[in-house]
Amino acid sequence: MTRERIYLYDTTLRDGQQTQGVQFSTLEKQAIARTLDKLGVDYIEGGWPGANPTDSAFFEDAPETRAIMTAFGMTKRAGRSAENDEVLAGVLNAGTRAVCLVGKTHDFHVETALGISLDENVENIERSIAHLVAQGREALFDAEHFFDGYKANAPYALDCLNAAYRAGARWIVLCDTNGGTQPGEIHDITRAVIAAGIPGARLGIHTHNDTEQAVAGSLAAIEAGARQIQGTLNGLGERCGNANLTSIIPTLMLKEVYASRFETGVTAEALEGLTHASQMLDDILNRVPRRQAAYVGASAFAHKAGLHASAILKDPSTYEHIDPAAVGNARIVPMSNQAGQSNLRRRLAEAGLKVEAGDPALARILEEVKTREDRGYTYDSAQASFELLARAELGQMPAFFEVKRYKVTVERRKNKYDQMVSLSEAVVVVKIDGEKTLSVSESMDEHGSDRGPVNALAKALAKDLGRYQSAIDDMRLVDFKVRITQGGTEAVTRVIIDSADGQGRRWSTVGVSPNIVDASFEALLDAINWKLLRDG
Amino acid sequence: MTRERIYLYDTTLRDGQQTQGVQFSTLEKQAIARTLDKLGVDYIEGGWPGANPTDSAFFEDAPETRAIMTAFGMTKRAGRSAENDEVLAGVLNAGTRAVCLVGKTHDFHVETALGISLDENVENIERSIAHLVAQGREALFDAEHFFDGYKANAPYALDCLNAAYRAGARWIVLCDTNGGTQPGEIHDITRAVIAAGIPGARLGIHTHNDTEQAVAGSLAAIEAGARQIQGTLNGLGERCGNANLTSIIPTLMLKEVYASRFETGVTAEALEGLTHASQMLDDILNRVPRRQAAYVGASAFAHKAGLHASAILKDPSTYEHIDPAAVGNARIVPMSNQAGQSNLRRRLAEAGLKVEAGDPALARILEEVKTREDRGYTYDSAQASFELLARAELGQMPAFFEVKRYKVTVERRKNKYDQMVSLSEAVVVVKIDGEKTLSVSESMDEHGSDRGPVNALAKALAKDLGRYQSAIDDMRLVDFKVRITQGGTEAVTRVIIDSADGQGRRWSTVGVSPNIVDASFEALLDAINWKLLRDG
Repeated sequence: MTRERIYLYDTTLRDGQQTQGVQFSTLEKQAIARTLDKLGVDYIEGGWPGANPTDSAFFEDAPETRAIMTAFGMTKRAGRSAENDEVLAGVLNAGTRAVCLVGKTHDFHVETALGISLDENVENIERSIAHLVAQGREALFDAEHFFDGYKANAPYALDCLNAAYRAGARWIVLCDTNGGTQPGEIHDITRAVIAAGIPGARLGIHTHNDTEQAVAGSLAAIEAGARQIQGTLNGLGERCGNANLTSIIPTLMLKEVYASRFETGVTAEALEGLTHASQMLDDILNRVPRRQAAYVGASAFAHKAGLHASAILKDPSTYEHIDPAAVGNARIVPMSNQAGQSNLRRRLAEAGLKVEAGDPALARILEEVKTREDRGYTYDSAQASFELLARAELGQMPAFFEVKRYKVTVERRKNKYDQMVSLSEAVVVVKIDGEKTLSVSESMDEHGSDRGPVNALAKALAKDLGRYQSAIDDMRLVDFKVRITQGGTEAVTRVIIDSADGQGRRWSTVGVSPNIVDASFEALLDAINWKLLRDG
Repeated sequence: MTRERIYLYDTTLRDGQQTQGVQFSTLEKQAIARTLDKLGVDYIEGGWPGANPTDSAFFEDAPETRAIMTAFGMTKRAGRSAENDEVLAGVLNAGTRAVCLVGKTHDFHVETALGISLDENVENIERSIAHLVAQGREALFDAEHFFDGYKANAPYALDCLNAAYRAGARWIVLCDTNGGTQPGEIHDITRAVIAAGIPGARLGIHTHNDTEQAVAGSLAAIEAGARQIQGTLNGLGERCGNANLTSIIPTLMLKEVYASRFETGVTAEALEGLTHASQMLDDILNRVPRRQAAYVGASAFAHKAGLHASAILKDPSTYEHIDPAAVGNARIVPMSNQAGQSNLRRRLAEAGLKVEAGDPALARILEEVKTREDRGYTYDSAQASFELLARAELGQMPAFFEVKRYKVTVERRKNKYDQMVSLSEAVVVVKIDGEKTLSVSESMDEHGSDRGPVNALAKALAKDLGRYQSAIDDMRLVDFKVRITQGGTEAVTRVIIDSADGQGRRWSTVGVSPNIVDASFEALLDAINWKLLRDG
């Protein structure tokens, strides 16, 4: 039986950015687009060119993708032609192969929000889509508030869709903008649209998670005959979020009821990168990943000790709905590091450390990693710190230098011009080859701005490392990430530092402490030690 | 038309406790049970008496509830009678009105995990349920792995259900234990069970969120004829969690497609306590509430997009699927540089600040917000800081106190036991009513752990605020978020602090600086000033 193709349309960069507190930089948008393309989505909606500077900059320098890059905008306004609408022109100017325009289909909104006649709105849709087609673009129409509109005035809502269809839209996307429509209603209304003459192969679905059913609503539309799903990585999006592609993709591919009938552009191999893609987005947003996220969460395959855990050891399928490796995730079973050891040996080999199977150091390293991860460390994104930890357990970590003590002062007071200014100062005492050196530095940069206590500490530490000095001279801090791993008053700070050197190396280290200065210092020390290992 | 009753069965205290890292105390269990009862669920599953001491202690001193208190256990083991099974006796000894026993219905599990014959398992189910009924208890049977079992061997899975039904079980609960069954499959199999002779009025549904569809799966079973839903508050539970009652309850009550046909034991008034109930559980778990949670999340009714925000001002129903007040939540129209003056006036009105249209202060406030957002501030998620900024521009910000200077020291050195330890100390000089006070504090918590420089500073600041002291005594820090807004050496730190007080208020403030201590201090000062505004 031939399987029907489902098209995946990602809007993380556009609708995802509507999330409270989210504002991607152009570089971040590029990184996300590359990850999406590697995953294998069919369309990447990059933003609304002309509406905000970051989006325009992204399209000017968009990465080359296999996925169809798509610009978002809205249908032309009343009282002018599509050719003379400068907002629409701004969207077309991005030069993307596909363009998606949102337009109204709910009579109430046409009259209340736009304040134009119902006929004018239909004409705006038709003319706008026709204009895209005339320019040789693949045209998509996002039918805003479609389900609410259909319930209120079905003939009018269908008129709007038909206008886009007549004008040549490749996709007509049924949007549940407010997120309140139930999956059963989405199913029935999608069926009705198809019965009214628009082929399912031209229909898409766009849902929101306001009743925690955006995934189910998307799949209900597919069951009814729609063939495109719009969603975002990790369900990012306004209010409760958009349909979560991170859940939809593996469900379509791994659940027999769908996999037997449908296929997507995502390969089984790319699907193994799903957990990583999800974490990449959280990293960019500096969010703590949701442990309980379906498929990709750290707890998604965690089996609390007891009946489940012992059954899992006999046969994983007893309490697991899929093989976690299929989505790049891993099973967590307390007290079972059997599976862990071969993974660990692979990671050690990547760091150039060859350890025989069965070496007791392997169990010690796993134990140490587990203990530290419980305290808030993460070694997924701090490979250099992991290597140092493993070397210490293997007795292969040289003691280059020892920090005897440090002291940092942060002071804020009025200067002589009666302005509040702050200044930090750090003293570090280091012992190298039996000799103590004492270095002091303050936090002013070359423009006279205070860069804070961590900066002062880093400068003091790097000031005099004796015979190692030349090795660290070409080292620089390229990124600094701070995350609170436990909320409230028990807050523990995790600092991840990315460093680089003149030879093009880039490495990441981690530090954890309730004291943010301490956490930073620990990551900084690891960064220097790793560099000395390579160059020392 | 009479509406059919849907029964709500809460298992937060039992299945919810299977979550990685969750272990409720007896007191916490009591507090959660009272909240559930106030909400109006029909059954509260309190735990497995005899299996762990906290659960036994809870049943010994369970609160009086209108909801039916239920003990959980498993069907008797093979080779002994129900009367002589001490595990089952332990469950009955809790003396609850209802008892729920889990048993196997999947032939593979009976043979692999239990290692008994298929007939023995059926007999265990029947005898165990009959024993409960003979003791005058309301009996529930949790049919573990039912959907997978039905797919593998439908006649056998139905035999197991029938054994419980014959023996007099009030409820037979179809469990999707591994969480992989799709809503459409749940619907069809539930229909098949009813067609096979077990009335829908005796069927319950128990789903897990492994494909992010536990809510939809529960509602699909209701559509098929089941009349009980098992779930947890906030979807707490093993792996990806159980069906989320916090989403299911308002959906059943507020969505016409269900509300027209079904009713629950939850009143409209109790539903207004839903957001509070959800936060109570997060407080007990010391978890940061999920902003994007359906219905109850802080972002669930937050409108960021420029077009959406302006339409919301005209008519909230344009972009809201329900009235947020119905679930005790509130609308947020965040400030951001997309927002216009009418949006701004609305935000000000919410903070009790009435400003006439056209007041030149409006333009000044927008300009100030924009300037600060360019420097890394965000007022989307820091409404209290926004209010202070606006008040300052309007000349309506009292000067409660002035911080003249502060000084923080962070020191790390060896203690007398030759261990590296760190300690921070802060001195703050504050002027109130013309008088200077100097306070000093260190960063040790009650366990002797260093909590770092920000903690020391917060304690020193809160130590002596003169006549304002009483107003800030009930204030506490509930969350602390740090983000680096520009990478590399130009890193600027943004700190967002969430605070709460004894009156149930919760507010967020922001600080930005290259110096993380300064950024934290700024957010802290805003938090205190906002509290003084409300209480001063």
